[in-house]
Amino acid sequence: MEPRKDLLDIASLTLEEIEFVLKTAGPFKELFTKSIKKVPPLRGKTVLTLFYEPSTRTRSSFEIAAKRVSADVTNFAVSSSSVVKGESILDTIDTLQAMKCDYVVVRHGAAGVPNMIAKHTKASVLNAGDGFHAHPTQALLDAFTLRETFGSLTGKKILIVGDILHSRVARSVGRICEKLGMQVGVLGPGSLIPKSRPSFMRMFHSFEDALDWKPDTVYLLRVQLERQKDQFFPSLNEYHNVYGLTDERFRRLESEGTWVMHPGPVNRGVELGDAVMNYERTLINQQVENGIAVRMAALYWLKPQTT
Amino acid sequence: MEPRKDLLDIASLTLEEIEFVLKTAGPFKELFTKSIKKVPPLRGKTVLTLFYEPSTRTRSSFEIAAKRVSADVTNFAVSSSSVVKGESILDTIDTLQAMKCDYVVVRHGAAGVPNMIAKHTKASVLNAGDGFHAHPTQALLDAFTLRETFGSLTGKKILIVGDILHSRVARSVGRICEKLGMQVGVLGPGSLIPKSRPSFMRMFHSFEDALDWKPDTVYLLRVQLERQKDQFFPSLNEYHNVYGLTDERFRRLESEGTWVMHPGPVNRGVELGDAVMNYERTLINQQVENGIAVRMAALYWLKPQTT
Amino acid sequence: MEPRKDLLDIASLTLEEIEFVLKTAGPFKELFTKSIKKVPPLRGKTVLTLFYEPSTRTRSSFEIAAKRVSADVTNFAVSSSSVVKGESILDTIDTLQAMKCDYVVVRHGAAGVPNMIAKHTKASVLNAGDGFHAHPTQALLDAFTLRETFGSLTGKKILIVGDILHSRVARSVGRICEKLGMQVGVLGPGSLIPKSRPSFMRMFHSFEDALDWKPDTVYLLRVQLERQKDQFFPSLNEYHNVYGLTDERFRRLESEGTWVMHPGPVNRGVELGDAVMNYERTLINQQVENGIAVRMAALYWLKPQTT
Repeated sequence: MEPRKDLLDIASLTLEEIEFVLKTAGPFKELFTKSIKKVPPLRGKTVLTLFYEPSTRTRSSFEIAAKRVSADVTNFAVSSSSVVKGESILDTIDTLQAMKCDYVVVRHGAAGVPNMIAKHTKASVLNAGDGFHAHPTQALLDAFTLRETFGSLTGKKILIVGDILHSRVARSVGRICEKLGMQVGVLGPGSLIPKSRPSFMRMFHSFEDALDWKPDTVYLLRVQLERQKDQFFPSLNEYHNVYGLTDERFRRLESEGTWVMHPGPVNRGVELGDAVMNYERTLINQQVENGIAVRMAALYWLKPQTT
Repeated sequence: MEPRKDLLDIASLTLEEIEFVLKTAGPFKELFTKSIKKVPPLRGKTVLTLFYEPSTRTRSSFEIAAKRVSADVTNFAVSSSSVVKGESILDTIDTLQAMKCDYVVVRHGAAGVPNMIAKHTKASVLNAGDGFHAHPTQALLDAFTLRETFGSLTGKKILIVGDILHSRVARSVGRICEKLGMQVGVLGPGSLIPKSRPSFMRMFHSFEDALDWKPDTVYLLRVQLERQKDQFFPSLNEYHNVYGLTDERFRRLESEGTWVMHPGPVNRGVELGDAVMNYERTLINQQVENGIAVRMAALYWLKPQTT
Repeated sequence: MEPRKDLLDIASLTLEEIEFVLKTAGPFKELFTKSIKKVPPLRGKTVLTLFYEPSTRTRSSFEIAAKRVSADVTNFAVSSSSVVKGESILDTIDTLQAMKCDYVVVRHGAAGVPNMIAKHTKASVLNAGDGFHAHPTQALLDAFTLRETFGSLTGKKILIVGDILHSRVARSVGRICEKLGMQVGVLGPGSLIPKSRPSFMRMFHSFEDALDWKPDTVYLLRVQLERQKDQFFPSLNEYHNVYGLTDERFRRLESEGTWVMHPGPVNRGVELGDAVMNYERTLINQQVENGIAVRMAALYWLKPQTT
C-alpha cells in the first residue's frame, strides 16, 4: 500500500486503504472503554481546523480525535476574520503552508476546495465536507458501523432516503457501501434525485416500494432546514408523511428487524419521530462514537510531507 | 465518603464533601506560586465545555483549571451551530455520551438542564450556572475565600445584596454559607426578594438597617444590565443610591473593617464605586484566583463512570 | 542583558535584545524541517490570548508558536462576552492577574492598552498590535526575514508604501530597520504621511522617484478596506495606479532584483497583482513562517514575574 497524503473523497480510495482505516479504528475504539483514552502517535504534530461552514459535531469530533492521538489542535477561525477581510482561499493556503502545520481539516461550502488546498500544501488535508461533493470520514465511520453490525457487507442492502441531489453524505456513503459489496437503494423527492446518478444506485418511487425491497438498514439524510426556503418540497409535515419514518413505517421496520442510521443532528418529527431514537436497532449514537475512532485512524494513516 | 459523579448544586452536597473540595483546593492554590502550576491527575482525560449562555470568565476559569490538572479541553460551541440547526438538548446529550468525554462543564439559561444531562451521560457533569437555579463552583470558591479570610465561619455574618430572586449565585452562596454555620442576610428591591425564600435568610429593608446588623462581609450581586429593560428598578443611578456601595456606605464599611465580595464582572458605579476596587478588604480578585483552584479540586474529586 | 518582562514596542528594545530574539528564532525555525516541531521550554506555562480586534493569522501564529514551546493556550474571548457585559479593561486586567497566567498576548484598537496591562500584571505581556502604535512581533519577524535574505542590513534600503499615518506596522518595521542600520524610505498619499515622522524616514512623492532611489526591498502595507469609507483616497483602482505594484512597476522591480514584502493578508489587485505572488523574490510566505519562529523566540526570551 502506497503512503497517502490526503483524504479527499471515497471514490479515489482503494479497497485496501478503506480496509486499513476500518481495521485501525477498531483498537482506537477499544481505548474508549479504558480510563485513559489517549495514545501518543501524533505527539508534537499540529492539526489545524479550517471550517468555512458552521459545525459543532464534526469539528468537535475531529478535535477530540486529534487530541486522543496526542496532536496539538488550533482552530483557524476563518469566518470571523479573514473572510471579512476579503482574503482569497489561495492566500489562506499559502499561509497554512508557511505555518508548517502537519494536518489541515477543512470544511467548505464549495466542492473542490479541499482538493485545491491539498495540491498546494505539504500538510495532509482531511476533507470534512465540501459542498455537494464528499464527506469521506462520514462514509468511513458509517462503513465501520455497518461492519460492526453486520460483519461481512457483501450483498447487504442499504436504503438512503432524502435529498440525494444536494447531499455529500449520500454521495460518499453510497460510494463506500458499493465498494464494500452492498446494494444501494435511494428514495427521495423526484426533484432531489440526481438524473446522472451512479448506475449502482437503485431508485425507488415510494417508501413502501423501497421497504418491499427488504433493506437491511435505512439511512435517513438530514433535511437542511436552512435550505427549505428554496421550497424543494411543500412542507416539513408533507416531507415526514412521504419520506420520514412515520409511526406506521417504523412498526414495519421494527417487525422486520431493519436497522436505522442518520448522520445527525436529527430533526425530530421530520426524518424520524421520538420512538425511533429509543429503538434498539438505531445506530445513530454508535455512528457518533465511531466517528472519533475512525478520525483517529485517518489521522494515524495519512502521511504529511512536512518532514 | 461515597464517590460522586456530578456537581449540580450545593443543596445536595454533604458537609463532608464540601470540606473535601475546600481542603483539596488549598494545595492547588499553592501551586500558583510555583513556576510550573500544572499537575498530572487528569492526564489523558477529555473535558468538554458546553456554554449555551455567553461567558468569558467562568469558561476560561474552567478551561485553565482543567489544563492545570492536565486534561484535554474541547469547547463544544453550541450557540454558533447546533442551536441554529435546531438540535434538541436530548440529542446533544446523546452525542456527548457517544463521544465518551470524561467531564462536561455546562451553562444553560434554563434551570435543570445540567441535571438532565447528568442523568443521561456517564461523564461527570459540572454545573457552571443554570437559569436561576444554581452555580455551585461559584459558591465553593466563595466558601474557600471566606475560610481563607475568617478561618472558622461559625456565627460569621454575610449580607447578600441585590436581585436575590433571579440570582443563582445568591441561591448557591446563601446555601453554602448556611451549611458552614454562617448567618445569612439578604437585601434588595422588594420585587426581587423571593417570597418563598429559605427560612435561614434574614431579610433587611434598607442598607442602613442591614449594616446595623454588623455583617462580617457584604456580598454584592451583579446587576444584569441586559435584564434592566424589564424595569425591575427605576434606574441604575437609583439602584446605586439604594442598594449600591455609595461613598458614605463604603466609609462605614471601612471604619468597621467589613469585607466586600462580588462574583464579577463588576458594574463600576452601579454595585460599587472605584474606591471599593482598591479597598484592602475587597476579596474580588481572590475570588477569581480561588475559582481556578476550586475548579481543579472539583475536577479532581468527581468520578466519571466512563472507565 | 537584563531580563525583560514584556514586549510592548520596538523603540524601547536595545540592539542586544533584538539580536537575541533574532538569533534564538533561527534554531526554532530549523525545527520546522523536522518531524516533531515542538520543544519543551514553556511546559506547564499558561498563555492567554486576549484579542479585542478580530484576527485569524496573528492569533493563530501566536497560538501555534506557544504550543510549539509546549505552553497551554487559552483564548479569552473578549468580544463575545465581557465587552458586551460592559466590563472595564482595568477589571479585566485584575482578572488576568488573579488567574496567574504566565503570558498574555493582547491586541486592542487603542494605543497603550498593552502597556497598561503590563504595568498591572505579573504576567509577561506581548503586544500583538495596539491601535496605530506598535506591532513589535511583526517588526521582529520582518527583521528576521530581512537578515535571512540580505545577511548584514547595514546600508540596505527599505521602501515602505501605503498609509504610514495609521499603520502600527509601518511604525514598528521602520523603527527596527533603522536600529539595524537600514535606510528607510516612505511613500503614500500626502494625507497619510505623518507630518511629525521620525527624521530617519525619507519621504518620496511618487513611486517612480522612490524606485530611482534603488530600494533593496519594497514593503507594501495592507490597505484597510474597512477604513476606506473614510475616503482617505479616491478609490481602490486609483490607489493601485498610484501606490500599488502595477504590472509596469513590477517589471522594473523584477529587472532590478528588488525584493517584495507585505504583512498579509494581501488585497490582490490593490497593493499588488497576481504576478507578484508568484515572484521568486516575494518574501510574504517566509514572513508568515518566520512569524511563528520569532514568536517562539519572544516567548522563550521574556521572563514573567509569576513565580
